[in-house]
Amino acid sequence: MKVTIWNEGRHEQINEIVANLYPRGIHGAIAEGLSEHGIDARTATLEEPEHGLTQAILDDTDVLIWWGHMAHNEVQDEIVNRVQQRVLTGMGLIVLHSGHFSKIFKRLMGTTCDLLWRVANEKERLWVVNPGHPIAQGLPRYFELEKEEMYGEYFDIPEPDELIFLSWFQGGEVFRSGCTFRRGLGKIFYFRPGHETFPTYYQPAIRQVIANSVRWAAPESGLVPFTPQNGQFPAREATPGKDV
Amino acid sequence: MKVTIWNEGRHEQINEIVANLYPRGIHGAIAEGLSEHGIDARTATLEEPEHGLTQAILDDTDVLIWWGHMAHNEVQDEIVNRVQQRVLTGMGLIVLHSGHFSKIFKRLMGTTCDLLWRVANEKERLWVVNPGHPIAQGLPRYFELEKEEMYGEYFDIPEPDELIFLSWFQGGEVFRSGCTFRRGLGKIFYFRPGHETFPTYYQPAIRQVIANSVRWAAPESGLVPFTPQNGQFPAREATPGKDV
Amino acid sequence: MKVTIWNEGRHEQINEIVANLYPRGIHGAIAEGLSEHGIDARTATLEEPEHGLTQAILDDTDVLIWWGHMAHNEVQDEIVNRVQQRVLTGMGLIVLHSGHFSKIFKRLMGTTCDLLWRVANEKERLWVVNPGHPIAQGLPRYFELEKEEMYGEYFDIPEPDELIFLSWFQGGEVFRSGCTFRRGLGKIFYFRPGHETFPTYYQPAIRQVIANSVRWAAPESGLVPFTPQNGQFPAREATPGKDV
Amino acid sequence: MKVTIWNEGRHEQINEIVANLYPRGIHGAIAEGLSEHGIDARTATLEEPEHGLTQAILDDTDVLIWWGHMAHNEVQDEIVNRVQQRVLTGMGLIVLHSGHFSKIFKRLMGTTCDLLWRVANEKERLWVVNPGHPIAQGLPRYFELEKEEMYGEYFDIPEPDELIFLSWFQGGEVFRSGCTFRRGLGKIFYFRPGHETFPTYYQPAIRQVIANSVRWAAPESGLVPFTPQNGQFPAREATPGKDV
Repeated sequence: MKVTIWNEGRHEQINEIVANLYPRGIHGAIAEGLSEHGIDARTATLEEPEHGLTQAILDDTDVLIWWGHMAHNEVQDEIVNRVQQRVLTGMGLIVLHSGHFSKIFKRLMGTTCDLLWRVANEKERLWVVNPGHPIAQGLPRYFELEKEEMYGEYFDIPEPDELIFLSWFQGGEVFRSGCTFRRGLGKIFYFRPGHETFPTYYQPAIRQVIANSVRWAAPESGLVPFTPQNGQFPAREATPGKDV
Repeated sequence: MKVTIWNEGRHEQINEIVANLYPRGIHGAIAEGLSEHGIDARTATLEEPEHGLTQAILDDTDVLIWWGHMAHNEVQDEIVNRVQQRVLTGMGLIVLHSGHFSKIFKRLMGTTCDLLWRVANEKERLWVVNPGHPIAQGLPRYFELEKEEMYGEYFDIPEPDELIFLSWFQGGEVFRSGCTFRRGLGKIFYFRPGHETFPTYYQPAIRQVIANSVRWAAPESGLVPFTPQNGQFPAREATPGKDV
Repeated sequence: MKVTIWNEGRHEQINEIVANLYPRGIHGAIAEGLSEHGIDARTATLEEPEHGLTQAILDDTDVLIWWGHMAHNEVQDEIVNRVQQRVLTGMGLIVLHSGHFSKIFKRLMGTTCDLLWRVANEKERLWVVNPGHPIAQGLPRYFELEKEEMYGEYFDIPEPDELIFLSWFQGGEVFRSGCTFRRGLGKIFYFRPGHETFPTYYQPAIRQVIANSVRWAAPESGLVPFTPQNGQFPAREATPGKDV
Repeated sequence: MKVTIWNEGRHEQINEIVANLYPRGIHGAIAEGLSEHGIDARTATLEEPEHGLTQAILDDTDVLIWWGHMAHNEVQDEIVNRVQQRVLTGMGLIVLHSGHFSKIFKRLMGTTCDLLWRVANEKERLWVVNPGHPIAQGLPRYFELEKEEMYGEYFDIPEPDELIFLSWFQGGEVFRSGCTFRRGLGKIFYFRPGHETFPTYYQPAIRQVIANSVRWAAPESGLVPFTPQNGQFPAREATPGKDV
């Protein structure tokens, strides 16, 4: 399984708190967490040529993880098109936290992806609402983050295919924190936690969820992808049906 | 539109608090709330012959509202069968609060319908997560109940067709409080609030939700029901397809 | 209820068969069908200024019907943005036939919306798979079109919220012909039939479906829309939750 | 992975055609097909004590496959309860063909599970409508069965969580032939083909689908099941939430 972790990587450069918390970048902490679960991953960041997401890299990626926040608009539309196309032909996509406002997530959802928000240092409790789902495996009934930013409803997304986690916030809000969507052949998982000023990506439960979601989103090994190249992807063509 | 409100009616007889709070019964308070929204309703209770749910009554009912708690097991299986059959041929069904454990709801869901629970007198805040849905019309972003019993996840139901409300509880739990399901031709809405020792069914927002859900669950006026009688309901028969 | 029918209007000008079949345009035939069901509609076409879809017109539209085929790329992105934004704040959208490849439908779906296709003059039979749904009201178990173009699976759309019709084609294909989606506060219905060289929009069953879908997609009369203007739409703001 | 194939096993005893076609029983042919895909399976039949589905067997089963037709009513309710309970705590269930009318499937769906039906020896073509799904892996765009019985819509089931296959029948019908449902922790897959007088269970594509579905339906290896025994299953209890 080939995993690429994409991180904007901007907060780490300009905010001392974030730099101290994530000395190898948010992507580095996520990669470390996957490694604990036996999953290798490469990383890519905004500042690399083509944001590190060349066609060759994407073609060699089974699951892409996305973290972005302050520089969504700097992501080139051409790269967004390329990632979208790759999702539709089978690459899994894990969108984290403020990635809800990324171009690629809004593109795939068709909605504003807006939500309620508050600067906060408060307790978040995530409840499992689909305990048989692969993404919830190995987790307790609920788990907590002592300090997180608050995201609340209404979260302007299409009705998720599956709802895995709901968050409770000390301040009075709730949020659909773990949602799956299918677009084309690709599986998408949105997972809420991960504000850059908190050590969220070092938490064992968070690392478990991300590892679970990567395994869930990977395309089937034996899958023959429907692509225009192999004549199996939807294309405007004649079928042999007429001789029935 | 013909609405029947079914209430177990037992708490009102044996618990002074409930009797004082709901002198005309929980069903009476619900009927009063519907009346404020221009909807007439008849009522039926457990102790009536056939629990007040004769075939004639059900045939004359567009939407049935169900409140039960301590006497689920006293509801006769024959009546449950009859209600289920009527839902499948188009009657709407609104299941309130502890009705999650009623025979009819478990029958239609196929699951235990179990949930987390705690005796509590705490604040519940209901958030709208589907603001364009008919059941959410006229409601603010969220509304509150100062005192309610707590129901929490995991709620063992099938994935709802639509999720309308999520509850936040002061004590740390969340709950899928407003869920729709379709079974056969019938529309079903489960709505969480309504513990018998609180004045929940007098709250304007609660009355708005119940009135909205009744309007939503009513079969279409022009609907030609698929029934065995008119040859339109699924029945094992030949079709004219062979001459294609 | 205020309905606007948008038609590209190009085939009618350059193809004599279409011109003879739809002398008042495809939009004219759809408007006539709605009128039979007591629904008034205005029309708009590609060639009008702003394609006839000014902000004022859209703000005054409850449901927009969309027919396009050969000139999808001529629709200005600015107008697509405008229509998308209006759907997200509550306007219903009915997308017909080759509109599956319109910019607005692809934008709202996030997928290619591609499908199998064959020039054909063959029988299509549409089966009702959700007989209790408002869009299926008044219809028989199935209905037929003697001559239609073939659209087949795989249809590259997100999993529909509800599936209402499935098509069978004489040549051996099937298609999810009636699908609902919710995006933001807006309800969307895709309906397959309607090739420009066939008299599809004169068929009573087709007119019934379109009228039903318009009624279903209209925003609730009493709905208080969540918009930035009234402070109810999702916006990045503080909530009073902290004082809980 | 531990798989149990349950077969009514009655047709094989009384119908010479079926006996010749399936000399080791339908269950034997299904087991042979799984074996080709590297999956071992035990079998159980109606006539065994407790229908071969003792609590010990079920506790040792990850996925149960179900084929039944003429003797649904002979399946004891106590065993149905036991299977249902086991599905809700995580066992996968694959329901084949006429199993749509089995007690266990109707119990889990809550609907009649009725459908249109015709004795037929005609071509069925199954189209993939969810090509990225694990159950569709390794399959072409569509595959055919030269001779099958016809099942048509309306199929009275709840809205499936996912739709994988649609069938086209020569005689003019369509059918939702591959549907997934989640109930509790258990994954359920209904798959249409398999009339006892045709060699359906010897077809490679059918064997591929059944093997795929078994792998998909198996509970996650690392899943800690929510059960009353380990305090993780929904039970009416207090939570530590009050001290938040």
